[in-house]
Amino acid sequence: MSAPGTDIEQVELANTSFYEALERGDFEELSSLWLAPLDTAEDDLVETRGGDEDEEKGPVISCVHPGWPVLNGRGEVLRSYALIMANTEYIQFFLTDVHVSVHGDTALVTCTENILSGGPSPDDSDELGPLVGQLVVATNLFRRTPYGWKLWSHHASPVLAEGGEEDGEDTPG
Amino acid sequence: MSAPGTDIEQVELANTSFYEALERGDFEELSSLWLAPLDTAEDDLVETRGGDEDEEKGPVISCVHPGWPVLNGRGEVLRSYALIMANTEYIQFFLTDVHVSVHGDTALVTCTENILSGGPSPDDSDELGPLVGQLVVATNLFRRTPYGWKLWSHHASPVLAEGGEEDGEDTPG
Repeated sequence: MSAPGTDIEQVELANTSFYEALERGDFEELSSLWLAPLDTAEDDLVETRGGDEDEEKGPVISCVHPGWPVLNGRGEVLRSYALIMANTEYIQFFLTDVHVSVHGDTALVTCTENILSGGPSPDDSDELGPLVGQLVVATNLFRRTPYGWKLWSHHASPVLAEGGEEDGEDTPG
Repeated sequence: MSAPGTDIEQVELANTSFYEALERGDFEELSSLWLAPLDTAEDDLVETRGGDEDEEKGPVISCVHPGWPVLNGRGEVLRSYALIMANTEYIQFFLTDVHVSVHGDTALVTCTENILSGGPSPDDSDELGPLVGQLVVATNLFRRTPYGWKLWSHHASPVLAEGGEEDGEDTPG
């Protein structure tokens, strides 16, 4: 898999890199995986209705964390990751049900994020806080750039158990 | 706005049509708004890891309803809408924060769905059941086809209030 590989393999690698950067808390790597204005600015059309003026030219990235409102633009999105990283001592993603679909310069990935995470210890010791499991599904949209496939949009949301057949959790929605 | 308009206007119309079809419970119209294999099958690459064989050739649509797992393919997606329509007497979407971003033949829309909905009356009368408000955010991905912009992916998720400043609900996440 060190060779360039097919589009689908490259997209799958980009998707994996995204989660690995989160696991390592590597903010710089994470920032480089999101689409930046200079990557592909020339032919993008952007419009916003019902609110703010456009903040930036070129591609506007968007991100929804589980239970959050939409974040638009690199400023909002990257700040949210800095905040999440600051409050996460440990996080691991076990990806399942990874579907990749490529059309031209755009790739759509859906996957299930089986997350195990822990915050700081409540008693200020060096140990981790309690680990929490979460079942989350994600839709990740990538674009081909001269620098590889970059994230255009990430939308993650909690799966609220309905009958408990999918996720082994019995918490009702 | 009856003229063809710009790409962004067309995408915004396609996005509005999607929610209007849901409001009317128009299953046929809704089905026609989702990308179909014959629309743009020729140059799609599709791969699925960690599970089933590919069910279909061409573009694989995906859909996440609030709190649900991922649904892939027209069969699963359209069945879910038939089920939702059968259990919904009344639904209205007030869209806010609509952002549209077009790149080539792909368009990304994010929006807030302020939903007011009601199920059948609990006492079998002709009246509606109680109306429920929901705050949901959506990421909708469209593709340009010879038949207009069609939905490739829809991901909707509940906004779980954090401090209650966004949505007027106080239910904690």
